[in-house]
Amino acid sequence: MSENIKIPADVPKSKHDEYLNNYAEMTKGSGRLMLFAGDQKVEHLNKDFYGDGISPDDADPEHLFKIASMGKIGVFATQLGLISRYGMDYSDVPYLVKLNSKTDIIKEDEMDPFSNQWIDVEQVVEFKEESGLKIVGVGYTIYPGSKYEGVMLRQAAQIVYEAHKNGLVTVIWAYPRGVSVEDELDPHLIAGATGIAAALGTDFVKVNFPRGKDDKEASLLFKEAVMAAGRTKVVCSGGPSIDVKSFLQRLYYQIHISGASGNATGRNIHQKSLKDAVKMCNAIYSITIEGKTVDEAMKEFE
Amino acid sequence: MSENIKIPADVPKSKHDEYLNNYAEMTKGSGRLMLFAGDQKVEHLNKDFYGDGISPDDADPEHLFKIASMGKIGVFATQLGLISRYGMDYSDVPYLVKLNSKTDIIKEDEMDPFSNQWIDVEQVVEFKEESGLKIVGVGYTIYPGSKYEGVMLRQAAQIVYEAHKNGLVTVIWAYPRGVSVEDELDPHLIAGATGIAAALGTDFVKVNFPRGKDDKEASLLFKEAVMAAGRTKVVCSGGPSIDVKSFLQRLYYQIHISGASGNATGRNIHQKSLKDAVKMCNAIYSITIEGKTVDEAMKEFE
Amino acid sequence: MSENIKIPADVPKSKHDEYLNNYAEMTKGSGRLMLFAGDQKVEHLNKDFYGDGISPDDADPEHLFKIASMGKIGVFATQLGLISRYGMDYSDVPYLVKLNSKTDIIKEDEMDPFSNQWIDVEQVVEFKEESGLKIVGVGYTIYPGSKYEGVMLRQAAQIVYEAHKNGLVTVIWAYPRGVSVEDELDPHLIAGATGIAAALGTDFVKVNFPRGKDDKEASLLFKEAVMAAGRTKVVCSGGPSIDVKSFLQRLYYQIHISGASGNATGRNIHQKSLKDAVKMCNAIYSITIEGKTVDEAMKEFE
Amino acid sequence: MSENIKIPADVPKSKHDEYLNNYAEMTKGSGRLMLFAGDQKVEHLNKDFYGDGISPDDADPEHLFKIASMGKIGVFATQLGLISRYGMDYSDVPYLVKLNSKTDIIKEDEMDPFSNQWIDVEQVVEFKEESGLKIVGVGYTIYPGSKYEGVMLRQAAQIVYEAHKNGLVTVIWAYPRGVSVEDELDPHLIAGATGIAAALGTDFVKVNFPRGKDDKEASLLFKEAVMAAGRTKVVCSGGPSIDVKSFLQRLYYQIHISGASGNATGRNIHQKSLKDAVKMCNAIYSITIEGKTVDEAMKEFE
Amino acid sequence: MSENIKIPADVPKSKHDEYLNNYAEMTKGSGRLMLFAGDQKVEHLNKDFYGDGISPDDADPEHLFKIASMGKIGVFATQLGLISRYGMDYSDVPYLVKLNSKTDIIKEDEMDPFSNQWIDVEQVVEFKEESGLKIVGVGYTIYPGSKYEGVMLRQAAQIVYEAHKNGLVTVIWAYPRGVSVEDELDPHLIAGATGIAAALGTDFVKVNFPRGKDDKEASLLFKEAVMAAGRTKVVCSGGPSIDVKSFLQRLYYQIHISGASGNATGRNIHQKSLKDAVKMCNAIYSITIEGKTVDEAMKEFE
Repeated sequence: MSENIKIPADVPKSKHDEYLNNYAEMTKGSGRLMLFAGDQKVEHLNKDFYGDGISPDDADPEHLFKIASMGKIGVFATQLGLISRYGMDYSDVPYLVKLNSKTDIIKEDEMDPFSNQWIDVEQVVEFKEESGLKIVGVGYTIYPGSKYEGVMLRQAAQIVYEAHKNGLVTVIWAYPRGVSVEDELDPHLIAGATGIAAALGTDFVKVNFPRGKDDKEASLLFKEAVMAAGRTKVVCSGGPSIDVKSFLQRLYYQIHISGASGNATGRNIHQKSLKDAVKMCNAIYSITIEGKTVDEAMKEFE
Repeated sequence: MSENIKIPADVPKSKHDEYLNNYAEMTKGSGRLMLFAGDQKVEHLNKDFYGDGISPDDADPEHLFKIASMGKIGVFATQLGLISRYGMDYSDVPYLVKLNSKTDIIKEDEMDPFSNQWIDVEQVVEFKEESGLKIVGVGYTIYPGSKYEGVMLRQAAQIVYEAHKNGLVTVIWAYPRGVSVEDELDPHLIAGATGIAAALGTDFVKVNFPRGKDDKEASLLFKEAVMAAGRTKVVCSGGPSIDVKSFLQRLYYQIHISGASGNATGRNIHQKSLKDAVKMCNAIYSITIEGKTVDEAMKEFE
Repeated sequence: MSENIKIPADVPKSKHDEYLNNYAEMTKGSGRLMLFAGDQKVEHLNKDFYGDGISPDDADPEHLFKIASMGKIGVFATQLGLISRYGMDYSDVPYLVKLNSKTDIIKEDEMDPFSNQWIDVEQVVEFKEESGLKIVGVGYTIYPGSKYEGVMLRQAAQIVYEAHKNGLVTVIWAYPRGVSVEDELDPHLIAGATGIAAALGTDFVKVNFPRGKDDKEASLLFKEAVMAAGRTKVVCSGGPSIDVKSFLQRLYYQIHISGASGNATGRNIHQKSLKDAVKMCNAIYSITIEGKTVDEAMKEFE
Repeated sequence: MSENIKIPADVPKSKHDEYLNNYAEMTKGSGRLMLFAGDQKVEHLNKDFYGDGISPDDADPEHLFKIASMGKIGVFATQLGLISRYGMDYSDVPYLVKLNSKTDIIKEDEMDPFSNQWIDVEQVVEFKEESGLKIVGVGYTIYPGSKYEGVMLRQAAQIVYEAHKNGLVTVIWAYPRGVSVEDELDPHLIAGATGIAAALGTDFVKVNFPRGKDDKEASLLFKEAVMAAGRTKVVCSGGPSIDVKSFLQRLYYQIHISGASGNATGRNIHQKSLKDAVKMCNAIYSITIEGKTVDEAMKEFE
Repeated sequence: MSENIKIPADVPKSKHDEYLNNYAEMTKGSGRLMLFAGDQKVEHLNKDFYGDGISPDDADPEHLFKIASMGKIGVFATQLGLISRYGMDYSDVPYLVKLNSKTDIIKEDEMDPFSNQWIDVEQVVEFKEESGLKIVGVGYTIYPGSKYEGVMLRQAAQIVYEAHKNGLVTVIWAYPRGVSVEDELDPHLIAGATGIAAALGTDFVKVNFPRGKDDKEASLLFKEAVMAAGRTKVVCSGGPSIDVKSFLQRLYYQIHISGASGNATGRNIHQKSLKDAVKMCNAIYSITIEGKTVDEAMKEFE
């Protein structure tokens, strides 16, 4: 369950220990990532947090911090602003600062997606030092195929370089999108996205799970993307809420068939009540970090 | 009427006292905000200040400063330029510098709204030190859903970060707008806007009051937005001038039904004569800051 | 004819004397402005300087400097480049550096107007120190209603702030223009423009004179704009050449009916022969600065 | 043939000698300019250097340097990159670094012209110091009337200011162009272009020769542009290759009828064999710098 | 096989030795370049690395590094991110950092190509120092004829200048492309592209091989481009995989007929199994660097 990490060459020697500590904290020494994604208040507005089939607990953003603190997770990813308002009461949580975000209001045929960087890496470093919070990494979304990919690819490359320079771990969200993208869930295109992430030098890349006849076939197709990423590790987005067993089964396939290195899950956790959300974290954690089976994980949940 | 404030984690320790003082001044120790909005000379040109149903007093911008000085308010929000020309004669007023502004000349179907930052936070800090004026915070408008939201979200995030770094309090005006926005007054969308503000880490967010059958129903619907904002406090725009009693009743509902933390009122104050405008401030103040009933507030006005 | 000036609060105390000296020089101690406008070589190309009804003297740009030196004026406004080529021979002239300019080649329905900043305030300050020339202020044009107003409003706000920080006086040219502007000469819209200038904190704003049945009615309508500007003083553009008496009469109305604080005149001066241009300056000066009547001013001209 | 130069006021006193030396070198003490233009490898791609009617010598860029070294010229204008590859072998040549360039591939109705700055003035200064090459000035093209004129006018103004600050001489290429420009060769419009150059404060401006019934009439019409430029000196583009005698006759008219201060010639020189190109330089030089007649110049060529 | 290098004049004297060492390493003392191109994970996504006719070895990006380490090459060109993840295990490889990249997802009629700079030269220098890796140069792609050529030409010019200032060797990929480009493989246009590269001052330019009746005719036509480049050396893109003998024959013609200075090959190498890819490198190397014949090179491969 432990591993020898290859520290990327853009981490200066004086930051090797800090990088290793951040990496170990984020992966709990397993080299695999259980990322709890909480950046949807911008990405999906309040649709993910309030309405039919969503626990009333989720209406308050503090729900996310309670889950992150009480459940087993690798890292909690959200915007710096939310961390700055709740972090002092949840200082045990390891945070990953999501550096860009956009709303989903603009229609796809109106404009290709552009998600601009909100906060610079040097500000994250300054914030970490001032606040004493456990910030272990930064995240950024790219939309390959968007007319604005040029701006985002530069921001992403700069973020990876500057984060590594400061000993922080990086996660790139990579979603091909825009009027020129014919099928976002094409396995070959997703492998293209993980390859871009490798060229950016990021530690982890988060992509959508490709389309397949069923989860097993999709997991086989997904191997291409894991291979294309090389030493960059691949995690899958959790997507919209589905039933717990199906979710855990799919996760198990992703890790054990595709060779994925974990998961990045938001809605399947936080749309549940606090109690269920915590159990869901622990179930996911048991598969991702502790190497458990789906049945063992279901016992964690029930 | 007092409260324990949670200082956001992006305020450095060396600025805690300054932030607390600014926050206390702005909320009069109540944790609630009575913001007198005076940025409309750009936003609405002279339409708000001259014409039928508007007191002749309002034709001169000094009217705003007289009201801010003589009426009870939490803070007066306007552009730095106006403050620089009148501040020396109204040095008792607590100011919030509105950092961006646009005109309403461009038609909605010509171009999505873009309101650019005029002045940087470091210039506000420098201006505060040089002038000795009581500047307690900064404000900025975002238009989620505009094709230019990417530029504005970055400016907003930078402003909140830099303002807090300097001990200043922040207010984000958040109005979903643009060709992709179908209904600006949809309660669910307004809750999306307050959630964005929470992710930006702002202290206060100013939004439009949602559409409802009547003010009471709207106030119930508005609870979603207050919840979505979490520790970011929500205040409502006053909107166009209406009769005083209706205005105060709606404000009372917003605070006592929705859980809003105050109000941001412009036209309903400054379009009145100086005498009435001051009384209007005091009536609003009595509800927002002093916890009075609508009837008690009406007595302040009459 | 003298006045107590309220120094704006964004002028640091260490620059109060310099600002007062510049202001006194520019207004000749009267608080009113006679600005000789000479930036049209870019704005109107050679159409203003060569052709029917234009004195042959005007074909050479030195004509502008000769007038500025021999006629009575408050300040001569032109681009830094021209000042740098003639200033050494006309070092007695008080200059205002016009910081942006555009040509009028692009058709209105092709593109909304954008006039970009050529030179930064710190370069003007450096140029003033190096050259020893009498540079008392800076100017900048905004086009409210243009799709590019966001860029121009920021440049304008920055220029006013930085100019005041360095003790320089500011003049904003404010012309609502663009495909969304229905009537540039609407008095209400012009009052909007002067209100924007007030929010920018500029010392003076130059606008077009509104449309009216005749100059007297227009002058009455124009009062709205003067009021909307508050402590920012309003001057009118001179517009295309008209007969001298009508010009002086209109100027008198602007000052004595509307409450304007002077004028900004180009073509009505420089399209005349040197001798007549100098007399025209003196006639305008006598009304604007010396408080003379139209008849007295006509005697200066004849 | 010598003259007293008026040093522009934006040249600091500490740089007066350097400016005078550069100016004298560039004009050979005559105050007139013979500029050998060699920036067409970007502007016109290989069409100017290879094909029917072009000497095979012109296929190799070193041809330009050989001409510049062996022929009589005032200054050789080309991109820094070419200078950096050949300058060590042609260190006797006075160079003017052309700071922007664009290709002519994009069709006029696809996009208005935009020629972006490649290299900053401070880099030219650094390059001059490091290389020891005889760099006497910088050049930049503006396209008044293009939708991108705002960007180019700022770059031009900054270049003139920074070049003069460092004692370098400036040449602005000024070509009205874009979908809004009806006739690029209209004498009145060309006078507009030289007027813009004057407002930019450049030492020299290079424009197209206007359309006329014949060269003599065109030269008369061109006087307007020379006058509009004031103390900025005007030189004409050489245009496409024509017969030598016509070329020299036109040049003579430009100087002796229009009052132009020289020429900027490319194709009429470098499309010839080295031997003829050198003779062509000398013939042009004899008219421009040495005040010879057309017949005398023809003897130089033959 | 050795040569006297003319160090470009923008390499400062203090960096002459470093430049010479980098140049010698990159050309193996031959003055000719064998560049192994590995930036296609962004440019072509996973299409170049996985699928019919591609060795399974190519699915993993480490394949590229194994080839670069085991085969004979001049330099391996790829993004900094990939180098940072594999460089520590392949420290014997000479690297060229490709500074910009774009995907090929956006359709040509949707938007002209724009490839933005990811990493700055000063970061490459810092990375080289920190990592101790053998970084000898940088690369950048321009698309002359694209509506974004203005941004790319400036980035390219800055990169060449800053790279030379730091003793690094430069390669410009130059592909005319965009809606205004009628025929990308027109020999005259390709000569235009190499001429632009010369004006940028780059050491090497990589272009597409022009269209011809056969490779021999194309090689004759290609001489124009080699001449137009002057002292900038020209190498050809390898293009899609073809049979080995044809590839080597074409390469031989390019060098011995056209006068090209080498090749830049990606797919024709890495789409083969490791064993074959290494042999292919050696075969190419034998022609490019060692001056062998096609038959001799084929023996290397077989």
